[in-house]
Amino acid sequence: MSDEITVRHNEKMRKIKAARDKMMETKTEEKGLIVVHTGPGKGKSSAGFGMIMRCIAHEMPAAVVQFIKGNWDTGEKTFLRERFAKEVRFFVSGEGFTWETQDRERDIAAAQNGWKIAKEQILDPEIQFVLLDEINIALRYDYIDIDEVVDFLLTEKPAMTHVCLTGRNAKPELIEAADLVTEMTLLKHPFRDGVKAQKGVEF
Amino acid sequence: MSDEITVRHNEKMRKIKAARDKMMETKTEEKGLIVVHTGPGKGKSSAGFGMIMRCIAHEMPAAVVQFIKGNWDTGEKTFLRERFAKEVRFFVSGEGFTWETQDRERDIAAAQNGWKIAKEQILDPEIQFVLLDEINIALRYDYIDIDEVVDFLLTEKPAMTHVCLTGRNAKPELIEAADLVTEMTLLKHPFRDGVKAQKGVEF
Repeated sequence: MSDEITVRHNEKMRKIKAARDKMMETKTEEKGLIVVHTGPGKGKSSAGFGMIMRCIAHEMPAAVVQFIKGNWDTGEKTFLRERFAKEVRFFVSGEGFTWETQDRERDIAAAQNGWKIAKEQILDPEIQFVLLDEINIALRYDYIDIDEVVDFLLTEKPAMTHVCLTGRNAKPELIEAADLVTEMTLLKHPFRDGVKAQKGVEF
Repeated sequence: MSDEITVRHNEKMRKIKAARDKMMETKTEEKGLIVVHTGPGKGKSSAGFGMIMRCIAHEMPAAVVQFIKGNWDTGEKTFLRERFAKEVRFFVSGEGFTWETQDRERDIAAAQNGWKIAKEQILDPEIQFVLLDEINIALRYDYIDIDEVVDFLLTEKPAMTHVCLTGRNAKPELIEAADLVTEMTLLKHPFRDGVKAQKGVEF
């Protein structure tokens, strides 16, 4: 490659860095974030558990409440319960996907119980990060009242506590209330070609 | 709620479960997947590290190569190096974002070195999952040749090894070659309101 390209590139990067540094100086506020991972793509729960890994790394006590899936012996659950019982409190409220249980009354009771635990964990001053995994499914079926959840997050959540809510079909009220919303979109999935869910990747 | 709603719901769920079970029976193939996390949203790397957590849980030896960001003392790096040195091999090839280094020659050398390590790890029969974190940025700037990467993944990757490639602006050739592609889209970000990146959530 020519020296000219390198010189031009380095100059461009210098300008980008200067602009970025200036922008970063204005970002000074610290606050507990309401984070939402939604959309039909993969990675919503994985990204939530990636954040849990970061919390462990930073010695920030965390809690997980799994709302809908839950009776599977998922990798995350085993891992966290066996190796990080002190760092991460792990609760399972649901008993499987709703189409597994076929019992609406039981699903509602499980979701309500999960929300009760979630509130306790969010209010606990020791806990800095709470992952509400797949709560959006419980909200979508109105097993938990969306207005109650949004109201709680906006008025009762301690200022510095982060809460991450995952699951497809996040309600507009939740997106409106959130600070950071990511939509995971599926561009391609191996299911189409007869490949089953693979250990380590999908569970 | 009325009994009628519950009965109707349970019947609907029974049908969904039957259809799902039937569909799942056709999903029998096992294969090592090429997974891509791209798009401008958050969660691309977090979801990759969530998969690493799953691999540890399932006792699947894994490797991580961080391509572009790298000189930050990220939570993931500290955590994995200190606590899971046996389970996860962790390599850092880059020295920071390209606008931090302002040295194109050095960035190219770092990216090429990362790709060399990546190939070794993918070919290693002991390793079952390889995360190539932010490799898409190196590919985008042509620091690594996309054709070489795609060719390697399609012809030399061991059949059962999973490889997850992250970073925005994934090249079309990579998306074409991949089995599972998720695009993370940003619907909302607290940066807009002057909030800085928060520990545990973003790093």
